[in-house]
Amino acid sequence: MKNDKSTLTEIFPKGEKGPSETFTGSAYPTSLVASDSIYNTLVGNVYFEPGARSHWHSHPAGQILIITDGVGYHQIEGQPVEIIRKGSVVKCPPNVRHWHGASADLGLQQLYIIPNTEKGIVNWNEAVTDEQYSINKK
Amino acid sequence: MKNDKSTLTEIFPKGEKGPSETFTGSAYPTSLVASDSIYNTLVGNVYFEPGARSHWHSHPAGQILIITDGVGYHQIEGQPVEIIRKGSVVKCPPNVRHWHGASADLGLQQLYIIPNTEKGIVNWNEAVTDEQYSINKK
Repeated sequence: MKNDKSTLTEIFPKGEKGPSETFTGSAYPTSLVASDSIYNTLVGNVYFEPGARSHWHSHPAGQILIITDGVGYHQIEGQPVEIIRKGSVVKCPPNVRHWHGASADLGLQQLYIIPNTEKGIVNWNEAVTDEQYSINKK
Repeated sequence: MKNDKSTLTEIFPKGEKGPSETFTGSAYPTSLVASDSIYNTLVGNVYFEPGARSHWHSHPAGQILIITDGVGYHQIEGQPVEIIRKGSVVKCPPNVRHWHGASADLGLQQLYIIPNTEKGIVNWNEAVTDEQYSINKK
């Protein structure tokens, strides 16, 4: 059964739909803390509708994800897809390719933290294929 | 009207009640990301019951607060108390004294991010008095 987004708690403004150059499906990124030289930290939220996910990408200083509602997937390249859900906290090390997004049937509300932004923010790569999205979940 | 905690969304485990050396009232801090030399970032959640608040304290590299539910207060020393609520994001600069906690009538669920932990985590000071807690809200 597909849910509609009203079943997930919205804490932050939904924002504009993210571009097809970096997301597959309907994902809504919102900036919460812009990086500056005091905190060197970038914080934001992404609401992923069911089936939506980021493209493959990496962060020069890594990334921390905090899931506030829903169910989704996170995959570090070369590792199984892991299921993430409300309350999950996952980390991706610096310069390691990963992707994250909603499950096929339930959306995902996730905060992201990019630390040490003086080293860089994000490098975007190719889309996650339907086959990559749908196999090998642990 | 006092609420009970069941009216706030709990995303993370509640944890143990924080000590009276650092909190007034019933506050429940939970660690989500321990600091390490890769991310240099510490993340956690605090659930404050109505009336509960931290003592005065400062962070050598500052702090970012993200409010996920409820209503509370944040005060940077020398500034008015600001009201924080679900969706609020506030920052406190390095080495500046502040306190944060729930409102008198509603609890607060708040994430905290401490960046650049190689500079230090937190320095605790004296309790926030009832007079400091109750006056000068903007």
